[in-house]
Amino acid sequence: MTTSRENLTNWLRDAYAMEGQAIQLLETQIERLESYPEALPRLRRHLDETREQQSQVEQCLHRLGTDTSTVKDTAMKIGATMQGMMHSMAGDEVLKHALGSNAFEHFEAGCYESLMVAAETAGEPEIARTCQRIMEQELDMAAWVWEQLPGLTQKYMERAEAGAAEAKR
Amino acid sequence: MTTSRENLTNWLRDAYAMEGQAIQLLETQIERLESYPEALPRLRRHLDETREQQSQVEQCLHRLGTDTSTVKDTAMKIGATMQGMMHSMAGDEVLKHALGSNAFEHFEAGCYESLMVAAETAGEPEIARTCQRIMEQELDMAAWVWEQLPGLTQKYMERAEAGAAEAKR
Repeated sequence: MTTSRENLTNWLRDAYAMEGQAIQLLETQIERLESYPEALPRLRRHLDETREQQSQVEQCLHRLGTDTSTVKDTAMKIGATMQGMMHSMAGDEVLKHALGSNAFEHFEAGCYESLMVAAETAGEPEIARTCQRIMEQELDMAAWVWEQLPGLTQKYMERAEAGAAEAKR
Repeated sequence: MTTSRENLTNWLRDAYAMEGQAIQLLETQIERLESYPEALPRLRRHLDETREQQSQVEQCLHRLGTDTSTVKDTAMKIGATMQGMMHSMAGDEVLKHALGSNAFEHFEAGCYESLMVAAETAGEPEIARTCQRIMEQELDMAAWVWEQLPGLTQKYMERAEAGAAEAKR
């Protein structure tokens, strides 16, 4: 058997690793998004949020009397997955990133929704509140990415018609 | 340069491949979801929808004067990505599937949202309408998966506490 507290701890470790990958992903996007500077402020804000989320998840683990020392394998698996998602579609990098981000933010939101219930079940209401707060931030970010899709698609196609290589970034 | 029509065609091929992977994913989930029979009717309905979506995407490709003959590489990449997502989190299969499905349905919805704009830009309003209809189905499915997360998490934790091996399926 596995206790609720053990499950909660394992999933928080996964979440810590996931945020580490989210930070790398956002750093790469911010670095490469040359053609769409209008997206940068929101991406930078979410990078700050994501760093803060990772630190909050770490505090939750401390509250449970443990730390983040064994998250490395999970982080590597999530990293490979995200790269796969980014590279599975045709060669249009900006759109790939946006489509991947939309899915990833919803993946994160789902993890925190589930974690919130896990924390309640394990009798940790404060951790549940932290998870709910982070979940709402992920959904906000997902909604923002979604809103960018039509304009981004149109802009990409216009630039592709014009033959601009930088449309792909 | 790449014309709007070429981009639309390429992305529809990606979408065709993506639906092929979605079908496999749903078939696997339906086959393995022994402990949560209450989810089966909705999963089966979405499997039917997904087969119909793939057929509609194929019809869009025919309308553009092409077919689905070169989608194999993309399908393999998407397949590997989905498997990665399913296996990146700790060993709780039902929850992994639900969290992965939530993200995947949003990934699909985003692809069709983008395709809808691409079809409009390429002067193909009928294809745009098909893509919008599919997009709405994917969002409906995503919303349903999301609604399952709290109950699924709680049920999983209860069974894990009781030590039931079948909770993981």
